Amino acid sequence: MWIENARKILPAWAKNGGDQTDVVLASRARLARNLQDLSFPGHASEATMKEVLRRVEQAVNAIRADHSPLKLTRMEDLPLLERQILVEKHLVSPQHIERPQHRAVILNADESVSTMVNEEDHLRIQAILPGQQISEATAAADKMDDLLEERLDYAFHEEKGYLTACPTNTGTGMRVSVMVHLPALSMIDQTRRLLSALSQIGLNVRGIYGEGSEAYGDIYQISNQMSLGRTEEEILYNLQTACAQLVESERTARDAIVRDSKLQVEDKVWRAFGTLSQARLLTSEEALRLTSDVKLGTDLQIIPDMKSIYLKELLFVTSPGILQKIIGREMSPGERDQYRAMLVRDLVNPNK
Amino acid sequence: MWIENARKILPAWAKNGGDQTDVVLASRARLARNLQDLSFPGHASEATMKEVLRRVEQAVNAIRADHSPLKLTRMEDLPLLERQILVEKHLVSPQHIERPQHRAVILNADESVSTMVNEEDHLRIQAILPGQQISEATAAADKMDDLLEERLDYAFHEEKGYLTACPTNTGTGMRVSVMVHLPALSMIDQTRRLLSALSQIGLNVRGIYGEGSEAYGDIYQISNQMSLGRTEEEILYNLQTACAQLVESERTARDAIVRDSKLQVEDKVWRAFGTLSQARLLTSEEALRLTSDVKLGTDLQIIPDMKSIYLKELLFVTSPGILQKIIGREMSPGERDQYRAMLVRDLVNPNK
Repeated sequence: MWIENARKILPAWAKNGGDQTDVVLASRARLARNLQDLSFPGHASEATMKEVLRRVEQAVNAIRADHSPLKLTRMEDLPLLERQILVEKHLVSPQHIERPQHRAVILNADESVSTMVNEEDHLRIQAILPGQQISEATAAADKMDDLLEERLDYAFHEEKGYLTACPTNTGTGMRVSVMVHLPALSMIDQTRRLLSALSQIGLNVRGIYGEGSEAYGDIYQISNQMSLGRTEEEILYNLQTACAQLVESERTARDAIVRDSKLQVEDKVWRAFGTLSQARLLTSEEALRLTSDVKLGTDLQIIPDMKSIYLKELLFVTSPGILQKIIGREMSPGERDQYRAMLVRDLVNPNK
Repeated sequence: MWIENARKILPAWAKNGGDQTDVVLASRARLARNLQDLSFPGHASEATMKEVLRRVEQAVNAIRADHSPLKLTRMEDLPLLERQILVEKHLVSPQHIERPQHRAVILNADESVSTMVNEEDHLRIQAILPGQQISEATAAADKMDDLLEERLDYAFHEEKGYLTACPTNTGTGMRVSVMVHLPALSMIDQTRRLLSALSQIGLNVRGIYGEGSEAYGDIYQISNQMSLGRTEEEILYNLQTACAQLVESERTARDAIVRDSKLQVEDKVWRAFGTLSQARLLTSEEALRLTSDVKLGTDLQIIPDMKSIYLKELLFVTSPGILQKIIGREMSPGERDQYRAMLVRDLVNPNK
């Protein structure tokens, strides 16, 4: 059955786990690190980038010998589709797959920790976990950082901290973020106001596919803007506090819409379910929008017995790359819309 | 179960029967008649209208003594809701219920023949049957006409024929019409062209609720514009020919869309089914539009096993008056949208 195979492709954060999963889809921590005495990738020669990759590969081999399996994959060895899938799983950035030469990714077994080599910095260590697990994600990234630091010389300045290509990352080099689902705030038109308040307290708000992307399906990524001059603890505390407030606001908004416009919410949610159950053509944008409505319905217990429907799985299998991987061949956008609808029907009507 | 009770309310033409039911929903024949030496209702005094009603009532009593049950109901004796339902069943015109005084309707047992008293003419005898049954409907109206004419003196002119309030009806006083469903012609943008061709050969095209109403759900009523100077046979032949051509064009269009855009049609049809199955709020306009799509899906055998779904019933139970009758009380438009969605879900998911 394709669903079983599809589950094997999904990264750790697509699975259940973590707190406040009604609002927080995933938590991410990222550390920017660079090797001493070598130019940042943006200004580095081919030789320098090769040298970075050589040293990192050596370190990874040493870690692998002592610890659980780590796998370094050079981007240029991957077919375009596989690279696209890494982006859809949020394991590498879209920029990282554009020019694959001398670039790589290091993954652990369940893909909860991924490290990009020669992206904007020599190393971008990232951990993503499901739900609200900001501390746990930070701990996982820190652990990977320790393993690498034991075997590599990092560029570090006594006062400034870790040196990075972009000055906003200097210091701890840490960026933490949460991916949140805010459908009720969106329904009562409060999202814009709240998110602009967040940016005033030093947090950055983006859509689901990163910088500049739209917030399809009312999914937002909230992260710290700066790490320079702040301790890890401060950065963590700021995001955790903001996240708790967002969760509280979204839950209050959900209570309000259920109280004031129950029927309208039920109608919206069931219509989305009806369309996902029956459509024969679905763009990824529409699938995401409808999945967002259905998830709200599940969280509000409007749609009962949704154990058999895996919302994050819906989100993943509708992504163009993963969809083509599941079906097993490249497809035109029109064909993808057809197969996407087919997979979604299977997931939504598990007994058919 | 409400569905059983609802079925009892429905008129003959809502049931199965007749030919070409994939395109022709119903056939109707109407005869305009007036009593001799009495002014047409538009110019009649109260006393004259009373006199018309008295004579007609007498005739109906005499017919009833000899034949199957006929029932004359005075409009002013009916609650507003019951009058509204007569309009929704197409048994009387919207104009007929607006000023109920001295106005009445005569119905036979299965409501296939209805006669309005003191509408635009003293008598408007009408027969509606399901599917293509133009001849049969004409025969049924003629039979009622004969029964009345035996007992009433009609206004008749040797050369002009039956005299009527509006000169376009003079002559045979006959208007025949078909209610047709043209979703495929609409999808390939051919409806307007075809219908304007019909009006050039003396046929009149209207939406589902008569003169000036919009063609919601791609349902049109086609009728002859004039009866003056034409024989019953000519009028019948003209409409039958035009109807046969329309059926042919619509079927060709259905073949074409299945051939050229199968997936798009399947998507449209199944989405409509999904929304009807799940919506919690439905306006009558949306219900009609979606029912039209689902009917196309049934006709094209895209939606299998639709025996248990009664498309004309869907059309009826979603009408505001019949809906309130089924639920058993008056409701605000908002409440109606809610109960309409509930009844539609019951009809579309018969096993739930």
